[in-house]
Amino acid sequence: MSTVNPHLPVIAVLGGTGKEGPGLAMRWAHAGYKIIIGSRQAEKAQTTAVELNAKLGIDFVEGLQNEAAARQADISVLTVVYTAHEAAVRSLKDALRGKILVDATARVDFRDPRPPAPPSAPSQAQEVLGDGVRVVGAFQTVPAHVLKKKLGEALDTDVLVCADDLDAAGQVIQLAEAGGMRAYYAGRLENAIVAEGLTAVMISLNKHYGVRTASIAVTGLSPQPA
Amino acid sequence: MSTVNPHLPVIAVLGGTGKEGPGLAMRWAHAGYKIIIGSRQAEKAQTTAVELNAKLGIDFVEGLQNEAAARQADISVLTVVYTAHEAAVRSLKDALRGKILVDATARVDFRDPRPPAPPSAPSQAQEVLGDGVRVVGAFQTVPAHVLKKKLGEALDTDVLVCADDLDAAGQVIQLAEAGGMRAYYAGRLENAIVAEGLTAVMISLNKHYGVRTASIAVTGLSPQPA
Repeated sequence: MSTVNPHLPVIAVLGGTGKEGPGLAMRWAHAGYKIIIGSRQAEKAQTTAVELNAKLGIDFVEGLQNEAAARQADISVLTVVYTAHEAAVRSLKDALRGKILVDATARVDFRDPRPPAPPSAPSQAQEVLGDGVRVVGAFQTVPAHVLKKKLGEALDTDVLVCADDLDAAGQVIQLAEAGGMRAYYAGRLENAIVAEGLTAVMISLNKHYGVRTASIAVTGLSPQPA
Repeated sequence: MSTVNPHLPVIAVLGGTGKEGPGLAMRWAHAGYKIIIGSRQAEKAQTTAVELNAKLGIDFVEGLQNEAAARQADISVLTVVYTAHEAAVRSLKDALRGKILVDATARVDFRDPRPPAPPSAPSQAQEVLGDGVRVVGAFQTVPAHVLKKKLGEALDTDVLVCADDLDAAGQVIQLAEAGGMRAYYAGRLENAIVAEGLTAVMISLNKHYGVRTASIAVTGLSPQPA
């Protein structure tokens, strides 16, 4: 049975009852992170928390209403559907003050996937939240289906971490790696629009190649002879 | 010494005297494609053609003014700098009728890289060129520096091929593979905005990780157990 590592930051997975949230939460809980599932309704969050505890044979995943979850966390990861993004961000302004918000939102409609126009969802969140919150864009390109792989298996998907604050980006890279993903600093927050658009590309790849796991990896980061 | 394979389409590399064009042209000539380098000035195109012939020990790379090059080619690949994109496309309207234009343009400024807003450069080209030309977006994410690798070595970079015409996309995938790249159908022409934006991400990765070869690969296309 995994135990909580008290030296790791507490992670809230907001909107964590959907497709993407539970998969991320499970991997981080398995790696010893204290996890709080957030949802608009506390009961739904608690149901997901109970399921995750049962799956992992642990008891330290909690479920709370989104704002309460964010208040108790060091890092909050927003995995709501894109139509709920703006309202969710507005409701979290106080709870997130002084903290890191990781925005995984991709404003792409599964049935009619089109790359969205700038500014990126995390840039919009930053605008609403102000300077008191460090917003990081990440995890948009991680398919929910890939997170279903066995725990401990490396995931063949890379995370593009976009942030104006390098220290916050570094903390999120560490979090991604703890969950079995490779993660890279991919530039300022505005670059997150590319990760959003990649989800439209991934849906297109899935349809054309008959899979549910299309994603992207970063290549060419090892220095090469000139 | 390589010889021309007369069964392959003739390829014009327009704006082919820059950073990206010669690298692509060299790989395709090496694979037996008849290549015509295009430039606004025929003399510049001829200089690049002479250099490529010398490098490869061949004599079948030609240099012509852009429109003349497009007229003689089956498939034209546009590798101009983004500030020259609109004028180049307008000047090519007649020469490209009934043919395929592969647009590799990424409207990103190297000194101030920001992901551009839709519509994509290839979508804009399609709008100018009309239905008589089949426009395909591709090769934006292939770093010029990666193309300098030894001929015959596989290139660690994937090509996102975006097109509204699947047959045209298929021909471009074949062309990319002949040049040593993996290439995938990544959805409709509008998705090319993502490949453009990826060049801003690649510039950010290059700066942060101290390389010149950052690129992306597609993952997860092999069917997985559910």
